[in-house]
Amino acid sequence: MGEGLALRWVKSHEVIIGSRDAQKGMRAAEEYLAKARAFYGDVMKGTIRGASNPDAAAQADVIVLTIPHEHAASTILSIRDRLKPCQIVVSPVVPMVKFDKDMLYSPIIEGNKVLSYAEALARELKDVPVVAAYHAISAKKLANPALVLNYDVPIAGDDEGAVKVVMELTREIRNLRPVYVGPLRSALMIEALTPLIINAAIYSKIKDASIAFVQ
Amino acid sequence: MGEGLALRWVKSHEVIIGSRDAQKGMRAAEEYLAKARAFYGDVMKGTIRGASNPDAAAQADVIVLTIPHEHAASTILSIRDRLKPCQIVVSPVVPMVKFDKDMLYSPIIEGNKVLSYAEALARELKDVPVVAAYHAISAKKLANPALVLNYDVPIAGDDEGAVKVVMELTREIRNLRPVYVGPLRSALMIEALTPLIINAAIYSKIKDASIAFVQ
Repeated sequence: MGEGLALRWVKSHEVIIGSRDAQKGMRAAEEYLAKARAFYGDVMKGTIRGASNPDAAAQADVIVLTIPHEHAASTILSIRDRLKPCQIVVSPVVPMVKFDKDMLYSPIIEGNKVLSYAEALARELKDVPVVAAYHAISAKKLANPALVLNYDVPIAGDDEGAVKVVMELTREIRNLRPVYVGPLRSALMIEALTPLIINAAIYSKIKDASIAFVQ
Repeated sequence: MGEGLALRWVKSHEVIIGSRDAQKGMRAAEEYLAKARAFYGDVMKGTIRGASNPDAAAQADVIVLTIPHEHAASTILSIRDRLKPCQIVVSPVVPMVKFDKDMLYSPIIEGNKVLSYAEALARELKDVPVVAAYHAISAKKLANPALVLNYDVPIAGDDEGAVKVVMELTREIRNLRPVYVGPLRSALMIEALTPLIINAAIYSKIKDASIAFVQ
């Protein structure tokens, strides 16, 4: 998903690929940049560069956590001291477990309440606004800038300004339609989409799908 | 939703409207039948009749629990002794709570595990197969047989035969596409769709919507 967002947004933005290993981030950035140049040519306004996760997080206006849930805690630990309240953290992270063939959404349980990953993250990051988005986008299709993605993208967040920025960034990706679905607590229902889509692929061969709201 | 399913299925099936008050069930059945006759005319093969919940449950091959979560426990209590393992119970029930303007999915918490309503129900009904379906269908649109519903209907269940019957019943409603998404534990992700769709309506004015998987 990181590759896909980089390839889509580099058309108009500076993109930084963060990695635990800065060298690895730089190599990925070079690879993505070559693909982007081949696709966009002179229309491309941005560049892609690599950095360590903490450096990438410190420099970016918007940080998208394109990491599996298993690695989220250690990544957050490595970047949280570098974040400022004027930045925006976007979480497409989904806690889920594999059962037999299928995936099961596995939200955080706190007493008699269920918490989305995005809400738990927001609590940890305190003043830095967290926006939940991009849980249900096919990483494979996103990484092909020639493909037009005709999806609805449910977005949740408490900070109006931050939500607006993420809605705009979403609209920049051709045919993606951001759909605001409420405060960050609504992230619970968005995160559940990921295992639903994975299971639809496993059991009904609907591969690399996303969702749309149909009226 | 009960009205919509009755109006759609009466074309080929005998429909029984169960109610806590048998008289109320009969009045509803009469009203739906009049609507169905006006719409289908001679093409209609089934009828609609009313009964008390226990009597309706005892007679039906497939029982769809079109009841809000708040009334589910008392309804189940009133019908469970009348159910047999050869029947099928379909659960579109979604436990959710209202927060401020929006709805929040509120699954059952058991120790460190989250359980969908459908799984809790299956445990209570023991030998009677439970299939999770119809959580994300607009009741309003379903109740107008002239409308073609271009939705995907995620379905979860452990009993292969029961799932097959519900898939078939779903296909009988014009343009609905049943999508099997795995064993009953996948109901967790399907149930979460209802508050997601409600919140999309509240915050983004996407009214009476359902979902489709987009490839």
